[in-house]
Amino acid sequence: MISIGIDLGGTNIKVAIVDQKIGFLSSTSFPTNADLGKEHIFDSIAKKVKELIKEHDVKPIGVGMGLPGMVSLDRRTVKNPPNLPGWKVENVADEIEKRLDLPCVIDNDANLAALGSARFGVGEHIDSFIMITLGTGVGGGIIFKNKIYRGTTGSAAELGHVIINYHGPLSNSNTRGGVEAYLGQRFLSRFAADTIRQNTDNSLYKEFHTDFDKLEPVDLSKAADEGNELAIDILKKTGEKLGYAIVNYIHVLDIRKIVVSGGVAKAGKWILDPARDTAKKYLMPPFLEDFEIIYESLGNEAALLGAASLAFEELS
Amino acid sequence: MISIGIDLGGTNIKVAIVDQKIGFLSSTSFPTNADLGKEHIFDSIAKKVKELIKEHDVKPIGVGMGLPGMVSLDRRTVKNPPNLPGWKVENVADEIEKRLDLPCVIDNDANLAALGSARFGVGEHIDSFIMITLGTGVGGGIIFKNKIYRGTTGSAAELGHVIINYHGPLSNSNTRGGVEAYLGQRFLSRFAADTIRQNTDNSLYKEFHTDFDKLEPVDLSKAADEGNELAIDILKKTGEKLGYAIVNYIHVLDIRKIVVSGGVAKAGKWILDPARDTAKKYLMPPFLEDFEIIYESLGNEAALLGAASLAFEELS
Repeated sequence: MISIGIDLGGTNIKVAIVDQKIGFLSSTSFPTNADLGKEHIFDSIAKKVKELIKEHDVKPIGVGMGLPGMVSLDRRTVKNPPNLPGWKVENVADEIEKRLDLPCVIDNDANLAALGSARFGVGEHIDSFIMITLGTGVGGGIIFKNKIYRGTTGSAAELGHVIINYHGPLSNSNTRGGVEAYLGQRFLSRFAADTIRQNTDNSLYKEFHTDFDKLEPVDLSKAADEGNELAIDILKKTGEKLGYAIVNYIHVLDIRKIVVSGGVAKAGKWILDPARDTAKKYLMPPFLEDFEIIYESLGNEAALLGAASLAFEELS
Repeated sequence: MISIGIDLGGTNIKVAIVDQKIGFLSSTSFPTNADLGKEHIFDSIAKKVKELIKEHDVKPIGVGMGLPGMVSLDRRTVKNPPNLPGWKVENVADEIEKRLDLPCVIDNDANLAALGSARFGVGEHIDSFIMITLGTGVGGGIIFKNKIYRGTTGSAAELGHVIINYHGPLSNSNTRGGVEAYLGQRFLSRFAADTIRQNTDNSLYKEFHTDFDKLEPVDLSKAADEGNELAIDILKKTGEKLGYAIVNYIHVLDIRKIVVSGGVAKAGKWILDPARDTAKKYLMPPFLEDFEIIYESLGNEAALLGAASLAFEELS
């Protein structure tokens, strides 16, 4: 069985042909050009999908699409997606269907990253897990009994906006001291820059002091790999924050497998080890059984595979 | 249809005959005498149930029992219940069945308080809600789509141990800065005493300074009702902590109806109004729609009615 997976982001759109057993048959990416407006986006998606179908001579059963923002429970409408300026309440499924003559279903991209991991990634053999995506922001998806847990309206798993310190910094949302305010890429970079500024003899100061905006989490993990104690400490403090958040997710949900994905997670053991240690310290003892943090290496492809999987599951 | 509901606590055991449509037909309470051991507890429960059945001449379909502690997914075994010294992993359902010749099912008492509210209380017309019980500790239960959400092992909704401030005080569990460390009765009383000690001209100081151990949340709400600004402020700060925790529950679960029950909740608007205001301030805007905090007046009877309801649902 074959479907089309689409990942509509603020910067790029990814389109793939996916075989339910094999995975990707083909995938491509092109700029969103969000400033050219909605119609342009839908038209360019439809054009690309038609090209791919023709080129590979396949008969997909339908289209699954992931995008940022809150998606209705019927999986057709998105509400105020961030990074897509001018979008309000948009029936994306209608727009795609009328251009492609294929059924379409949409979902939040973090939910679909979780589904992609469940069908094609490390989540394949885990019945229930919590997916945390560490990127520009901190997002999440919950797989419970092999299905996406959506809550009452489809907006569950706003995991980046779970408060771990009510005295903490404000993030993009209203929330104060949410975990995104520590692990979101911008926040982590700012925290790192503030710390490095106070250590003028550190190699990271020498490398970045003329332009700290260039400092990215990957620079910290590289320095940590080279034994830079300051970088190790910055990443450790960051990982600890993730650990507190994980305690909260597990105490609410009683789901003990944590799958971590995304750019910041590439700082690997420097963040995930302290997260694991902190969670172990503060979890109630019964939850330690079966507790595990697992790195998902599918990266951005998880959401694309999840989008195609959604089509398999809801349109076939 | 009629069942037997039992609420096994560390201090008292409550037993009731419950009609699925009417509610209580009869209920009684007697001391647990936990120090006399398990056998004594099971024997005294069986004796009381037999008496009630004979007295009221009913044919119950089975027995549902709530107790503190973590209950297995098959709803027969409890693990290390706090307040029941000497209990390890105990097959409570077996013990009751062999004494009563009636099928038995057990669950965590906070889960059953939620189920009791869903069947006989303010939760009756709410499809999904989060029940928070504010008593000696802070407990919880989650009703999702009209059923108890149990997580992967039956231990979900440890809502008192959700961290709102990782710098915060330790509570009974391992967790630091969990909401129980602010709203648990002992913690609230201690915080109140510390605050009142610094205000020697306040009427609460005059009333309690010889023995602050006697200060209970109800004294604070009484003083607040009389216009005592210090009491109002103590309860406000406490309610705010609950508000942060509620933000966390809702951002994870996307369940927007909060049902609050228990002794501390009797401080009523002095706690719940600040909780509501704080949650509204820090919830992501889409979650404000349908958000509501509701007081459950069933009190301790919620768990007893929930126990009987569990029997209706799992044994009939």
